[in-house]
Amino acid sequence: KTPQSAEVAGWFREAAVKAITVSSLGMARHFAGAGWDDITVAFPLNVRELDAVDALTGQVQLGVLAESVESVRRLAAGTAHPVRVWLKVDTGYGRTGLAWDDPALEAVAEVVAGAPRLALAGLLTHAGHSYGPHGRDGLLELYRASVDQLTRARRRLERAGHPGLALSVGDTPGCSVVDDFLGVDEVRPGNFAFYDVQQWRFGACREADIAVALAAPVVAAHPQRGELVVYGGAVHLSKDAVTLEDGATCFGLVALPTASGWGPAVPGARVRALSQEHGVITAPPELLGRVRVGDLVCVLPAHSCLTAQAMGGYLALDGHRIAMVGGAV
Amino acid sequence: KTPQSAEVAGWFREAAVKAITVSSLGMARHFAGAGWDDITVAFPLNVRELDAVDALTGQVQLGVLAESVESVRRLAAGTAHPVRVWLKVDTGYGRTGLAWDDPALEAVAEVVAGAPRLALAGLLTHAGHSYGPHGRDGLLELYRASVDQLTRARRRLERAGHPGLALSVGDTPGCSVVDDFLGVDEVRPGNFAFYDVQQWRFGACREADIAVALAAPVVAAHPQRGELVVYGGAVHLSKDAVTLEDGATCFGLVALPTASGWGPAVPGARVRALSQEHGVITAPPELLGRVRVGDLVCVLPAHSCLTAQAMGGYLALDGHRIAMVGGAV
Repeated sequence: KTPQSAEVAGWFREAAVKAITVSSLGMARHFAGAGWDDITVAFPLNVRELDAVDALTGQVQLGVLAESVESVRRLAAGTAHPVRVWLKVDTGYGRTGLAWDDPALEAVAEVVAGAPRLALAGLLTHAGHSYGPHGRDGLLELYRASVDQLTRARRRLERAGHPGLALSVGDTPGCSVVDDFLGVDEVRPGNFAFYDVQQWRFGACREADIAVALAAPVVAAHPQRGELVVYGGAVHLSKDAVTLEDGATCFGLVALPTASGWGPAVPGARVRALSQEHGVITAPPELLGRVRVGDLVCVLPAHSCLTAQAMGGYLALDGHRIAMVGGAV
Repeated sequence: KTPQSAEVAGWFREAAVKAITVSSLGMARHFAGAGWDDITVAFPLNVRELDAVDALTGQVQLGVLAESVESVRRLAAGTAHPVRVWLKVDTGYGRTGLAWDDPALEAVAEVVAGAPRLALAGLLTHAGHSYGPHGRDGLLELYRASVDQLTRARRRLERAGHPGLALSVGDTPGCSVVDDFLGVDEVRPGNFAFYDVQQWRFGACREADIAVALAAPVVAAHPQRGELVVYGGAVHLSKDAVTLEDGATCFGLVALPTASGWGPAVPGARVRALSQEHGVITAPPELLGRVRVGDLVCVLPAHSCLTAQAMGGYLALDGHRIAMVGGAV
């Protein structure tokens, strides 16, 4: 769901990945068209899109997320083909899902099990509370606590007559630091395809692991206040940010292009502000001395998922263009 | 530059508006194709796009922004048709432009005046420091200070041999509260076509003036923690926010659909968090009691420019679709 590209997904298929997770039906259609036939839409079922769900279930093995009896009833009534249903478990993030000890879990499972075309696939979580400067040990602890809750939820459902459920975990920071996935059946670390400054800050990757950058032309230099302005604003980078160790807000780090890509982030340089089309870069003398108006800088994005979505395509380092999920959402 | 739509711009043409300001060359092409022939690109000239600038100058009366001798020299060398050049003045925002008393102003004007195809149009500012909870009096004061600086800059350039320069002002909050535009030649309040929660918060409009909303399906209800989750995330709303009077971060206010549009914002309801596809709404009992999973809510965006760009099109209240500037940036 980060690269949103059949070509990039193909690199993972070459590495023997057989199933794909997306965050919208539009992406599911894109990857179904590219030959993926095991697709999970890791977003709570939107009952207003049942026609689109039904069209996909006739084509691929589709997995959807449910957390309410009502949604599952409408899914059961609205689709003509088999659908796999994952129960969404909230292990502490507080966005969507049911707590492992919520009696609604059995109630939803019961409705799924009783619907002829629905199959109970398992329990799925996104431990998004890992998105913070927890450090490696903190991330490991959050991961273990999350898997522990999923395991408890599975035990409860086994007792309620639903055996053999799979466990699916997904947050990129947690999955990035764990060495041993014993006890879980699948991992869905969407952002690890590219990583970004947030993940680096959260201890999930090294700066050198960040695999995508926005090439932004310098349009103004203001050495007297130590700033550059680039054509690279909120409509290009998105407006997600990360707080750096010194407390500064950062929409991206800044590197310089090289013959084969880009160099290391320039120490002390960061995108400090974004408006619609402008990015304002705090530029130390090292950066100011090396770029002029008209040069390109490479912005390592705070949040690569949103930058990829905003740009709608890629230029690979070998010069070829990589297409993305296209069109309206 | 907010609606990015030839159809919406047509409504302004019916109201006798004859010139249009945009923030990218892609938008300029869109409006040139729709018959606008006086177009200002209110973004510092990107010298990497001189071919595209030149193509447009052959087609319409194009205005561009400059603030450095180097950019103007490259413009003069890189275009074959007449171009109008506005000098960008920084009246306190600190993003782009030259201060009214910066000697570089005369230097840039001199290069423009000496280039055969370049015409010095005037002095232009975007007083973006008006984006804050200044109140009406505060906005008026900022506006007057900004026009005062532009006027001083014009006087300096007159003395340097550049008479008859126009003054162009543009920030939406300032232009929204001023009754008397005496002394300026054009206003460019881009956001006032739609307004949004930021503008409402800054005192530039009433809530009822907000003319665009994101229709978002409810995908999960969590009454025990007073929250709804909608299919409406950072890829739909963008991730700009506004701080409400009580200190709460708000990515949008929440209204309910009516037969003819949407009602007033539900008191106490706000989008408190966004992830890629999810919006998390703080929902008071009044809202929780009125919506179910599958219903639509209308999110009045924190920043309508970015939401419009993210969605890429509109559904008018009469049911017809309104197209926007399309394609890659």
